[in-house]
Formats: sequence, structure tokens, C-alpha cells
Amino acid sequence: MANSTQSFAHVDAARLHGMLDELAAFGRTPGGGVSRLAASPEDGAARDYFRAWLKGEGFKVLTDRVGNIYGVLDLAGPDAPLILTGSHLDSQPSGGRFDGAYGVVASSLAATSIRAFASARPVAFSSNLGVVAWTNEEGARYEPSTMGSAVFAGGLAPEAALARTDAKGVTLEQALDEIGYLGKDAPPRRVASYVEIHIEQGSMLESANRTIGVVESNWGTMKYIADIEGKASHTGPTPMAERRDALLAAARIILFCRALSDETGGKLLASVGRLDIHPNSTNVVAGRVRLFAEFRAIDPLILAAACKRFEEEAAANSCVGVSVEVTPTTAREAGEFDAGLRDLIEEVAVELGHPTMRLHTIAGHDAVPLRSVCRTGMIFVPSVEGLSHHEAEFTRPEHLEAGAAVLTTVLFRLATGRA
Amino acid sequence: MANSTQSFAHVDAARLHGMLDELAAFGRTPGGGVSRLAASPEDGAARDYFRAWLKGEGFKVLTDRVGNIYGVLDLAGPDAPLILTGSHLDSQPSGGRFDGAYGVVASSLAATSIRAFASARPVAFSSNLGVVAWTNEEGARYEPSTMGSAVFAGGLAPEAALARTDAKGVTLEQALDEIGYLGKDAPPRRVASYVEIHIEQGSMLESANRTIGVVESNWGTMKYIADIEGKASHTGPTPMAERRDALLAAARIILFCRALSDETGGKLLASVGRLDIHPNSTNVVAGRVRLFAEFRAIDPLILAAACKRFEEEAAANSCVGVSVEVTPTTAREAGEFDAGLRDLIEEVAVELGHPTMRLHTIAGHDAVPLRSVCRTGMIFVPSVEGLSHHEAEFTRPEHLEAGAAVLTTVLFRLATGRA
Repeated sequence: MANSTQSFAHVDAARLHGMLDELAAFGRTPGGGVSRLAASPEDGAARDYFRAWLKGEGFKVLTDRVGNIYGVLDLAGPDAPLILTGSHLDSQPSGGRFDGAYGVVASSLAATSIRAFASARPVAFSSNLGVVAWTNEEGARYEPSTMGSAVFAGGLAPEAALARTDAKGVTLEQALDEIGYLGKDAPPRRVASYVEIHIEQGSMLESANRTIGVVESNWGTMKYIADIEGKASHTGPTPMAERRDALLAAARIILFCRALSDETGGKLLASVGRLDIHPNSTNVVAGRVRLFAEFRAIDPLILAAACKRFEEEAAANSCVGVSVEVTPTTAREAGEFDAGLRDLIEEVAVELGHPTMRLHTIAGHDAVPLRSVCRTGMIFVPSVEGLSHHEAEFTRPEHLEAGAAVLTTVLFRLATGRA
Repeated sequence: MANSTQSFAHVDAARLHGMLDELAAFGRTPGGGVSRLAASPEDGAARDYFRAWLKGEGFKVLTDRVGNIYGVLDLAGPDAPLILTGSHLDSQPSGGRFDGAYGVVASSLAATSIRAFASARPVAFSSNLGVVAWTNEEGARYEPSTMGSAVFAGGLAPEAALARTDAKGVTLEQALDEIGYLGKDAPPRRVASYVEIHIEQGSMLESANRTIGVVESNWGTMKYIADIEGKASHTGPTPMAERRDALLAAARIILFCRALSDETGGKLLASVGRLDIHPNSTNVVAGRVRLFAEFRAIDPLILAAACKRFEEEAAANSCVGVSVEVTPTTAREAGEFDAGLRDLIEEVAVELGHPTMRLHTIAGHDAVPLRSVCRTGMIFVPSVEGLSHHEAEFTRPEHLEAGAAVLTTVLFRLATGRA
């Protein structure tokens, strides 16, 4: 076993970085990041690249109703369980080149590397290997995030996902159809384990000088839309007392969210990152604002208390002449990843000589919904300065390679029944 | 003189309302308003309609460098001074059908009505008559507002106006060229007087049950852009203390502006109607926000004090990890309209049997920049419930007709040297 492990320590670094470079061209921004919103033409181009690569490598390629793309290698026969690995290709409007894409590329190369290893010597596989690119992990164009994986795991109906609209009223169904990824294939079943590798998007690994993060659990997250209805009027002649200013109410809610976090000393994360303002014109008192708020905490009590107060405060704005309607869009409970997989990831990383660290993920990942249907594990590699959802997001090449080696070895052990 | 006055009391109501109906079709919104941003295709269609109408009626039509459209009737020979009247055809993104369009239509029909009157009897004109539709009065797509009239009056260089960009980076020059209104004509000169009729956009006339408003003066206005620079990052893993949240800073500034007004008991009007947020995505701490603020007051001391405190407060936000750069975009001083024209408007309205009221305009109008180059007067007609910059903006037909009759009579007296 020591021999087979070591053979995977050698990652084809040129191919790993080359594929990341090629993917980064789809939606490239002047600042060196990517703008590849879910089901956009840029996302379509990245999908085309990925699908063509899978076909060229002899994977059986499936696209399901919500556009999740799977590539399956039959290593153990049609009735064997499946070890699934992957991430996502969509990005934030102005995102980084590694968020998601790294997991898809590392997973793909891990699968072909395992197959190549097995072709040179006798290997008894107990599972097949599947690679996946989930639709709309980011939730930037369509709410909620981790949409494709949630549909796969049964937490969201495909019809509901397809009916979601973007800010221009385009449904996900229309957008996927436009780029040719409104699939008809049934997704693969009999999934025994799912392993995802991702950049950390925080600075814990970097601060502790560790290379491999073993993700223990995820924080709980609640996301809301608050629809604030005021009345559009002229910013000149309308007396202040008669204004029903939806943007003023939004500003109050933004500061209230921040105060909720401040009270907990940062144990609660609270954010308002987006406002859709109508008509959004200098000379018009805003008549309507849709506000997007989110709260995260590892402690369910802190999270629940914040959400209750947010809902009450939003409603209280009615007294300033606006009405506020609050709708929860995401409720992701805090929870742990599979204990056996956590130990396996750590064991492999240590064997390969990489310093490890156990940590939590505050960000959502496709691995979270997957947890309800199979054993699930997550591996993190460091993000320089913790920067993410930013064009300058960066992970050092040697860390990308180290993570790929750990992932490949973990998958090999799972597929051969050694873990 | 009593006879000639009375003859203009009869306005061709069918034509007035018919032309307003026809103009309202350009950019019509489902809510019954118009969306006709400056130099948009919809504005282009309204301009085409206006230009064709002027040509059909035998006006000499001129389009200047910034797209202002003039129609001139030669009544007193090429060397005679010009009495100019008009308003604007552009609208807010979700505006009403009378704001601007009423002034253009009433002016146009006043000019042809005066010519028709003169064709039936000997009238000695001392001035020619010109009708104008100014470019970008609203300032919704391009800052600042009253742009075309400011260029005409010499307060803004045409090159500077043409170089302004909209939110998508399209210059006014490109947009005007696109719709065929990047003109080459020199604007008419020798303007002796400018008279503009407009809906009040407030509720003073309605509350006092008066039909004709004689505008005494305008409030002072200062408008600012505040560019708030933070840093985009993930709303999950980024610790609260490390966030440089441009939208949080914007929320503070919005509430500060409101507080400035509250302190004056409403004597200062303060508004933030627009934020351009980047990337404006739920899961991203906003990296950049452009905030549009404006302050209005009739008392220059109140206005100056508020502006000073606003500038200081914006700068103070630097302490929360963002930088704020404040740029004034409009500085419109409070000032009075021509005393003689005010008296003339009131005298004519009283002769025609319409109850009048002296009032101020809080909103900006093209008549304000014109004041620096000629005698200038403004007439208001009531707005139902004071509603404006809203699709439901409405003025009763009889008030539109009364205003048109007053305007026509005032223009006749000016053009014949009787005032």
C-alpha cells in the first residue's frame, strides 16, 4: 500500500496548471479573474471544454435535467457503487480562477491518473469513479447557491430550480437551454462517497502554515430576500415627511445586520452584498428595493437568535412608510462531514508529507447537500491572504499539486476498497 | 389688447391632448408612464416625432452639437430677437408622461397658434418665436441634469457634455450619434426671453386650489457622486473585522444624509436615490459603490452647511477600511426668475380667469441655466397629489389647457413687444 500511495504523489503538474489556464480563458476579466455566471455563454464555453475533455478521455458523459455534468469511468462493472468527486465551473460576477474550477480539474486528472495506474498493473476496483461539475454553486445569478448538488441530493425539486429567474427574468431552464445544457440523462446513482477539493477562501491554513485542510464541518447559514416597497417620487418637491423611501429602509436594515454581528464579537457573520434598487435614479426617491441578507454561525442558537431579530427588525421598518416582506431562500444547517473520510484524508496527507489542519468551512459547498445521500469529505488547500470572490484570488502551484496528490490517493483507496 | 388676449384663451384642446397621447407612446410603460432616457432609442423616436411635426408646420429646424432641437418661426425678420419657449422630451427610467413633454407640446402649439392668429389680421411682431426640446434635462442617464440647456447657456462645455458616460460606459456622443441627433447646427442666438411651462411636481397648487403657478425662484441644489472603494471578498470566510465593505459605508452615508435633513426640520431636502454596487452579488462583500447624493434648500447658508458636513462625513468613513472620494456634479444656486415676466404671467393668468399662486421650484428646470443669458420665466400647472417621477404622475386636462392658454398669451405679448 505504501507503494501505491507513493505513485500518486506524482501529479502531472503541467497538465493540472494547463487545464486551469485553459478554463480561466472562459469569461476572463481584465483583472485576471473570471466572470462566468451560471448558465451564461461563458459558463457554456467552459462546460463545452469540460465535456469535450471527458469524451476525449473516454468517460461516459451524462447531463441531467438541471445541467449537472457527470463523467463516469467504469472500473468495477455496472453494478458497482460509485465514488463521486468534483466541484463547479460557475463563478461570481467578478470571481477568481480557482474557486470551483480547481476541484473539477483536480478530480478529472485524479480519475484518469488512477485509470492509468491500473492499466500498468493488476488493480482490483470495488467501485467505479465519477467526476462532476455541478450547476450554479455560486448562487450569484440564481438563488439559492449549491443548486445543482441540492437537486441531485433531493433537497430541491428540479422543477423549482429550473423555474428560478435571474435579475432580468430569464429562467434557469431558458438559460441552460440557450447554452445546450438542459440535459435529459438520469444522474448516476449508487453513490457511495463524494469527495470534493476546493480552495479554502479563508486564511486559516496560510496563517498556520499548513498545506492540507481536513474539513470537519460547515457553519450554519440562513439567507433572506427582503422586498421593501416604498413609493417612487421626485427627490425635489416631495416633502421629507411624505417620502416612502425604500433605499433609506434598506440602509437601516444593512446597519442592523452589522450590529447583530458586532454584538456577538464576530461569532455571527452578517452580510448584505446585494441590493436591486428601482428605479435607481439620482432624482427619484427609491420606490422598491430587494435586499439580499445572509447570516452564518457554527452555533445554531446564535444563528437562530439573529434570524429571529432580523425578521422582526425588517418588519419594524413598516413604520417609516414602507412595507417589508422577508422570504428565507437558504437554510443550511451546521453539520459534520464523514468521520472516516476526515481520518482518511488526514492519514493520506501525512503519508505524503503535507502538514495538515482540521478546520470548518464557513462558505457553502456542493459537498454539504451531498452529505444527505452518501459519505462525504472535503479537502482544502490554502488561499493567499484568504482572498476569494475576487479577481486576485490565488493559490500557490505547489499547494494545488499537493491537494491533487492527496485527492488522487484518497480516491484510489476508496475505489479499491482500502478505506 | 383685451381682444387679442381673449382670442388666445381658446386652446385647441383636442390637439394638445392628442399630441401628448402620441408622445406618451414613445417608451410607454405597462404602468401608464414613460421610460425615455436621454438619447435612448425611445427618446430618438420622440425626437423624430417632434422634428417631423416642426417641419410639417413650417418651422426652421436646427439640431445643435449636444442634440438640442430648435424650431424657429420667422415672424419679424432675420435680425429680430428671439422669444424662446420649450422644455424636454427625456424622462426618468420610470417617469410620467407630462414631465417635460407638456412644455414641449404647449410651446409648439402656442407658436403655431400665434402664427395662425397673425395670419388672419395685421400683427406687428418685434421678435421671432422659437420652440426647443432640450437634451437630457433629467440627468437620469447622464449627469448632470439640465445638460442641454446648460451647454446652450455656456455653463457647460459641449465637449464635456458629450464625453459623459452612462452606467454602461456609453458616451452621450455615441448615444446621440446612434439615434441621429449629434447635430451640426449652431444654436439660435439673440434670445431675448425664455418662457417654460411645466407641471409642478409638488402639491402646493393643488393644496391651495390654484391653477397657475408663477415661479418666483428656484431652490439651491448641490449634487454629489461619492465613490466608495472597499475590497470585494467572500461573505463567508472573511472575518468581520477584515471586511472592507463599501455597501456598509454607503448605508451609513444614506442615514447621515437623512439626519442632516431631519435636523433642519425639512428645510434641507436630502436624498440618495441611486447606488451603483459592484459586484452586487449576495455572497460577495461589496468592493465598490458609487453613491449619488443631493441636497436642496432655499437658504444658501443651510445648503452650504449641509454640504460641508456631508463632505466631512463621507471622508470619515475611511476609518472603516474604505476610502471615499466625493465629487460635486451639480451646483445650482438659488435664484429668482425675471420680475417682469413673473408679473406678466400673473397678469395674463388673472385676465384669463385662472387663480394664481406665487411659489418656488425645488426641482431643477432648463429655465434655471437659461437665466444667465436672457430674461426667464416659468409657469407651473398642478400635479395631482404632487406625484412626479412616477408612472402615475397626472395633471387634469383643464389645467393643461389653462396653462397652455396662459403661455400662448404671454408669448404673444412678448413677441409683439407688448410686455
